[in-house]
Amino acid sequence: MKKFNTSPISGTLELIPALQAEFDHLKNGIMAAFLRHGFLHIETPMIERTEVLFAKAGGDTEKQIYKVMKTAETGHEADQALRFDHTVPLARYTVEHMNDLVFPFKVTQVARNFRGERAQKGRFREFYQCDVDVIGRNQLPLTYDAEVLATLAEALKVLPLDRFVMRVSNRKILSGLLEELNLQQVSDEIFSIIDHAEKVPREKTVTALEEIGLGSENVVKITTFMEIRGAREEVAEKLQNLGFESETFRAGVKELDEVLSLVETLSPGTEIIADMLIVRGLDYYTGTVFETIVPDHLEFGSICSGGRYEDLAGYYTDQKLPGVGGSIGLTRLFSLFVECGLVKGATERAIDVCVVPITVNEMAAVELVARNLREEGLKVDLVFGDKKLGDKMKYASKVAKKVVVLGEDEAKSRSYRLRDLESGAEETRDF
Amino acid sequence: MKKFNTSPISGTLELIPALQAEFDHLKNGIMAAFLRHGFLHIETPMIERTEVLFAKAGGDTEKQIYKVMKTAETGHEADQALRFDHTVPLARYTVEHMNDLVFPFKVTQVARNFRGERAQKGRFREFYQCDVDVIGRNQLPLTYDAEVLATLAEALKVLPLDRFVMRVSNRKILSGLLEELNLQQVSDEIFSIIDHAEKVPREKTVTALEEIGLGSENVVKITTFMEIRGAREEVAEKLQNLGFESETFRAGVKELDEVLSLVETLSPGTEIIADMLIVRGLDYYTGTVFETIVPDHLEFGSICSGGRYEDLAGYYTDQKLPGVGGSIGLTRLFSLFVECGLVKGATERAIDVCVVPITVNEMAAVELVARNLREEGLKVDLVFGDKKLGDKMKYASKVAKKVVVLGEDEAKSRSYRLRDLESGAEETRDF
Repeated sequence: MKKFNTSPISGTLELIPALQAEFDHLKNGIMAAFLRHGFLHIETPMIERTEVLFAKAGGDTEKQIYKVMKTAETGHEADQALRFDHTVPLARYTVEHMNDLVFPFKVTQVARNFRGERAQKGRFREFYQCDVDVIGRNQLPLTYDAEVLATLAEALKVLPLDRFVMRVSNRKILSGLLEELNLQQVSDEIFSIIDHAEKVPREKTVTALEEIGLGSENVVKITTFMEIRGAREEVAEKLQNLGFESETFRAGVKELDEVLSLVETLSPGTEIIADMLIVRGLDYYTGTVFETIVPDHLEFGSICSGGRYEDLAGYYTDQKLPGVGGSIGLTRLFSLFVECGLVKGATERAIDVCVVPITVNEMAAVELVARNLREEGLKVDLVFGDKKLGDKMKYASKVAKKVVVLGEDEAKSRSYRLRDLESGAEETRDF
Repeated sequence: MKKFNTSPISGTLELIPALQAEFDHLKNGIMAAFLRHGFLHIETPMIERTEVLFAKAGGDTEKQIYKVMKTAETGHEADQALRFDHTVPLARYTVEHMNDLVFPFKVTQVARNFRGERAQKGRFREFYQCDVDVIGRNQLPLTYDAEVLATLAEALKVLPLDRFVMRVSNRKILSGLLEELNLQQVSDEIFSIIDHAEKVPREKTVTALEEIGLGSENVVKITTFMEIRGAREEVAEKLQNLGFESETFRAGVKELDEVLSLVETLSPGTEIIADMLIVRGLDYYTGTVFETIVPDHLEFGSICSGGRYEDLAGYYTDQKLPGVGGSIGLTRLFSLFVECGLVKGATERAIDVCVVPITVNEMAAVELVARNLREEGLKVDLVFGDKKLGDKMKYASKVAKKVVVLGEDEAKSRSYRLRDLESGAEETRDF
């Protein structure tokens, strides 16, 4: 009988071992894809000085920061807090270790972050984020935008999804357009309205644009613009046809076309479109921006997002560090996979072979057989104890795919049968 | 120029990428050994309800607990804290998910824990612990004590150490001896004095025993006892010759002999001795206890410790859950390896091959070549940008072991040279 509330705190994903194995499989697969693409793994502390985090956070993020302190201290003195993303620690890390790094610095972080959010469906307080970033020193070729996209696409192929579509834009396009329409003073508002446009009916977007003072002509221009999406060449043509001339607008269109074209080459088979609805609310993106949707599960929202930022660490250094990066929010995604039945870990047995000695006399044979199987890379469990063989077999059938029983005969003949617990098929092996 | 203090908080280990790769190699190797031995991986949240942690903590541990709270809250309301070890969350997890687990539950956790210690050399506030545990329901055969030791020994073989020695005892031996000497009332003190005996001169141990009221005859008995160590048979004989008769003492001697004998069979080649100095200060161990030393680096102290506990989760459930487990404190250990030059990550290049296109026209060839190399499991970086070839080669020679330059000729002939950046040796390959 339970004497205590033993549930984990809300807003965390605590998995039974079979599901944890599925989670690890995805996490390790994503990490392996990042490493194969030449990204270097780093880890930063989960606890940062509060001033480091607050230098960049603000608004809602600031309210969500978890402070930490020793039990003897009181809240008001707390000068440490849990990181809420990988970007702020990466900025601090890059400046701190600058002389030991080679630039462009291609880096990956796959670890937990923390937000003291009110617990609700799909919102986690502890969550894995799988990030890649490329940081340049003073400048960073546009090609890296494409490489980040191509790398993330390879990583996403690890997931149990038939299809995903990367939606890409470039913030310079909208910025240039607003410049030319003389709407810079409401630029933030318009970015935000377009960012939310998919979540509300069309009329609401129109009303919102009117409310910030746009005339009907400009409203039509913005809504026409934001609905442009499709294959690279098609979108390039439509954008040309809008008739805007500003340098920023043209630079954005050109960059977008180059990035998409490169991704087509670097990651053949990846579905990728240009989509003007993608603007990313976060103000630190300055060029390429992207989100990723799952056509069969639009309710997942974006499963992988990111973009180009002109300066990673302006708070910490005078050195200009432009970067481009993206992130997969694995904890949220995995909880969706479980909900939709896209991972079936609960029915999988994580151990490859159970080795069951009949008595303790067979222990030397157990060691030999287990060692051989482990050298093949298999996960091998040993079943000990005074229990009846039937009980040991019951344990084996719950945890393992195959079983070996070792008795006096097997030890003497140095030969055993490896039995598949599903099909019953047997294979005889010597040791 | 730095505008900000960008150092990580003290008491954390933040590594440059080459050292991080070495750290990951060891961590992944340890984890792989645990999984090969049939242990199931789980992760628990880093944040737990304070009452869960405080149910077991106490004394110094309690003072070291890091509380967490949202920035809007004040310290006194905090009801959440960062876990300080894997054992308390494991106890909560085992009770919470009991109906989904198969017992004996063989489990591993490899992740960070947190202690708000005053930062000092060798003491970390965030540190990786690599734990294995086997949890039984009502009972757990002694064989699992041996399996935990054998598994940890296999994991330790991943480390860059020529030798390590596991020192094993059983707390029942000393308990039984104290019973028979009628010293139960100072049992805790004597366990603690023996636990510290190696760190102080012999006279101090004698004085400490006298100070808690032991007569000279008992002092001799205790000090004679605590110096017994050596190979299994030798120690068994010496313990017999002490002439103690209590059931607890005899049970301890028998268990120790059985466990050591099984480890000799299950993990041939592992250096393992019986050693009465090993008692483990922690009061929750009830049988087998062990520590591990590195003969060439005694200053490391114990690099892997653990033992048998009669009841994992008495605070949370009426169900009796005996267990046995052990832990490798990897963060501390890795920092010692770096100090002693046992890891040389700083000079290693983490990328296997850099692929350098001469112009953007070779991008399709880059994709093909990189894909082929990645399919061989290699880590492949691409070097982009308008820089001169010489600058690109400089980057390649800093990060990678080999390089491929792809120009018009290579793209046309579909053949390239893979050059070793160390030896200069070249290999021609088709793609």
